[in-house]
Amino acid sequence: MTYYQKLEQHAKKLSKISHLSAICSWDQAAKMPEGGNAARSEAMAELALIHHELATAPSLTEWFARAETESLSKEQKISLQEMKRSWQNDNILPADLVEKKSLAGSKCEHAWRTQRKENNWHEFSQNLEAVVKLAREEAQIRAEATGLSRYDAMMALYEPGMTCEKIDSIFGQVKTWLPALIQQVRAKQASDQVITPKGPFPIAQQKALSLDIMGKLGFDFRHGRLDVSTHPFCGGVPTDVRITTRYDEADFTSALMGVIHETGHARYEQGLPEQWHGLPVGQARSMGVHESQSLFFEMQLSRSKPFIEILAPLAREAFDRNNDKALSTDNLALFSTRVEPGYIRVDADEVTYPAHIILRYEIERDLIEGKIEVADIPELWDKKMTEYLGLSTKGNFTDGCMQDIHWTDGSFGYFPSYTLGAMYAAQFMAAMRREMNVENLIRERNLQPIFNWLDRHVWKKASFLSTDNLLKEATGETLNPEHFKAHLESRYLED
Amino acid sequence: MTYYQKLEQHAKKLSKISHLSAICSWDQAAKMPEGGNAARSEAMAELALIHHELATAPSLTEWFARAETESLSKEQKISLQEMKRSWQNDNILPADLVEKKSLAGSKCEHAWRTQRKENNWHEFSQNLEAVVKLAREEAQIRAEATGLSRYDAMMALYEPGMTCEKIDSIFGQVKTWLPALIQQVRAKQASDQVITPKGPFPIAQQKALSLDIMGKLGFDFRHGRLDVSTHPFCGGVPTDVRITTRYDEADFTSALMGVIHETGHARYEQGLPEQWHGLPVGQARSMGVHESQSLFFEMQLSRSKPFIEILAPLAREAFDRNNDKALSTDNLALFSTRVEPGYIRVDADEVTYPAHIILRYEIERDLIEGKIEVADIPELWDKKMTEYLGLSTKGNFTDGCMQDIHWTDGSFGYFPSYTLGAMYAAQFMAAMRREMNVENLIRERNLQPIFNWLDRHVWKKASFLSTDNLLKEATGETLNPEHFKAHLESRYLED
Repeated sequence: MTYYQKLEQHAKKLSKISHLSAICSWDQAAKMPEGGNAARSEAMAELALIHHELATAPSLTEWFARAETESLSKEQKISLQEMKRSWQNDNILPADLVEKKSLAGSKCEHAWRTQRKENNWHEFSQNLEAVVKLAREEAQIRAEATGLSRYDAMMALYEPGMTCEKIDSIFGQVKTWLPALIQQVRAKQASDQVITPKGPFPIAQQKALSLDIMGKLGFDFRHGRLDVSTHPFCGGVPTDVRITTRYDEADFTSALMGVIHETGHARYEQGLPEQWHGLPVGQARSMGVHESQSLFFEMQLSRSKPFIEILAPLAREAFDRNNDKALSTDNLALFSTRVEPGYIRVDADEVTYPAHIILRYEIERDLIEGKIEVADIPELWDKKMTEYLGLSTKGNFTDGCMQDIHWTDGSFGYFPSYTLGAMYAAQFMAAMRREMNVENLIRERNLQPIFNWLDRHVWKKASFLSTDNLLKEATGETLNPEHFKAHLESRYLED
Repeated sequence: MTYYQKLEQHAKKLSKISHLSAICSWDQAAKMPEGGNAARSEAMAELALIHHELATAPSLTEWFARAETESLSKEQKISLQEMKRSWQNDNILPADLVEKKSLAGSKCEHAWRTQRKENNWHEFSQNLEAVVKLAREEAQIRAEATGLSRYDAMMALYEPGMTCEKIDSIFGQVKTWLPALIQQVRAKQASDQVITPKGPFPIAQQKALSLDIMGKLGFDFRHGRLDVSTHPFCGGVPTDVRITTRYDEADFTSALMGVIHETGHARYEQGLPEQWHGLPVGQARSMGVHESQSLFFEMQLSRSKPFIEILAPLAREAFDRNNDKALSTDNLALFSTRVEPGYIRVDADEVTYPAHIILRYEIERDLIEGKIEVADIPELWDKKMTEYLGLSTKGNFTDGCMQDIHWTDGSFGYFPSYTLGAMYAAQFMAAMRREMNVENLIRERNLQPIFNWLDRHVWKKASFLSTDNLLKEATGETLNPEHFKAHLESRYLED
């Protein structure tokens, strides 16, 4: 057995452990009764420890060194690179820092669940300071090992290849046009007569509609399922993708759009190349590319007028409301593209969403680089919310800088992925449009060519290409935020 | 840390791995889409390997030797014994035999699923011969290590302390009265006018009724749930017990009685002493004692006339059939205690069931002891079926010696547990009756004293007592099959 083969075998072993961990996490969120949590958490921690011990086995250093001298195919070379990247990410931190991080993160996140409700920034900030201190240590170690800046080294965990330099430029451009665009869209929408659909929408009917739409969007039910959890997510493994939603009897659109979003994530996973399952190179390229698929399905596809033309009659039928004007195609189209600045990121529409991300990016970048301190966050948050969205959060920590879970456990560097995903999605759609008439295909109920394009250009590429090259091969250029801008202008200012 | 403490820590680690394995097995049977199976099976096999490597770590030999010289409490001494028993069971077989067994078992079981349908004894018997050969090797090794006979050593995996000598005596007694009893019951029931309840019974209503009855039987939904699978089982872990059933629209009684049966298993698990969770001594005593709890709930409790008085009106209400005579208390009582000899063990009533078990016991005992060969099975099966139940299985392998899964993967020694469980259950009920008026309690809808008795005498004892001592402390005597006989006579021949 060659060293490359030994490394493959080892990676597949790790992947099998991650498989069981993913299923048990899904179960914990979607099925487990409350009283099972304590023992489950301990069992999961044990499995994580077993995974960590295997992933950091000392013999791997030599295996990688030797494998690099072996004669490998082009694909194997990339596979080796990705195995090494994954191994380095797992190995770079000293064990005591990993443990301290885990403890500080658990403590901060756990307390945050109460402190947020109580608007208790004072106590929260003390826990957060401990988390930030350790995150800076982590960033320093990762920076030294990779030659990247500290924040770039953190971002590389989620979006390899992305740098502050690029993001500063992209987000800088967005900032020049976004606040004005929001104002224009608001002015244009001011005269729209939108009827909010009024519940109750029985959950059994919402579920049936969700499953129907998932089917139309090509979700493979032989390799996945839909369930319910408090926080919707896409989990499981490529051969068995578990997506979840949360039904609200008063509003069917939120669960439905959520299901469509997760279906985008799911199709990426289900579409990954089978022969590379279980190896790092066979995984999704990055968090941003993952988000591009969910946002392609949700924003590019499903909130488009032609898709609402499919959706609206199905909704009227599902809820037996043939004469409900709120469920007319025109009204649902208006309702699904309503723009309104708000405090909460997860509730934001696609026009105001980037403002929430840019704000967080600017703060966490400076926090990790040591240019600002935790104590500076509330004032910066208020200043930027006012500047970008015209909303002050002074004194309102609950709906301001304490609203997200990400920082509580030290996941700095993740936020940009959301807006990068929205931009990749718009760029994919623009490229696709050069090859086919997407609107006509949707109107003809012929979505297959759309899925085929994504399958060929994104899903089957797994991690064989860098994000830059994936974009170049699929669209002819690296990330160009003009496509996102054009998408927003076309959807929200034209017609 | 003492060696006893090291062993406890190690056992808890193994238990955490088993926890995740139990949840993933449940998922595989109850939730997993078909296409997820291949990758899941590989991942589960990997976890089993990790478990096996830990369970057979060479350092344990010394740890046990040293722990035995340490000063331990009475409970710790028993805990150490049980850890050692579990360790020896895991360690005694050479690795290559474990692997050969696993391969031969998988091959035989897999082919059996087709061969059974095709009545293909010829090809099945070849695979079974390979399985039996390895089971005999296993039995020989276990016999040498324990000083037991070969079959006793196999049975000790499921029912420690039980021997052929005891079973031959017990089953020998049963054989003297069972065939005549069956005839008497049949004669007595011949004139009964029983109406078979006629479907459809909608599954949603069956489920609601099942959950209602589970609640009345004290199932703790904070620590467990009910789902659907092809083969009903009780899985999960004590803090999170997963029971399953299979609904048939044409017949609500089969799912309902199944749910009650699994609820008995579940309450045993949920009732195990919390402070010993994760250690061998904190587990259920044996397969037979486990079955005694499911059969106590199903046979002793729920098929009794006073319980049917609770059940029947609930069923009429659940299915909105107030005037359906088939759901009258009297008819359901007759229907739930109908006796009819049949070919299939899993469909048998409690009167004919022991005949199916005695037959299997006598054959597998002689097979493992080398007194008969695989080729002898069909003739023996036919002879014994004819003798005990008056049914010939000549040429009918499908409904004869090929009906069970147990032998296909080499689980010889398990079958007696079913009938031992029925006998323990009857003996528990007889003892309970000396302390309280069980019938009155049921009529008063006051089941708590019944559950308290089981909790005190069985559930909370976990594996601290041998089965003999558990029976003695709970009922004043070791296993006495007269209680089972008296139960059958009382229920099926009196009134």
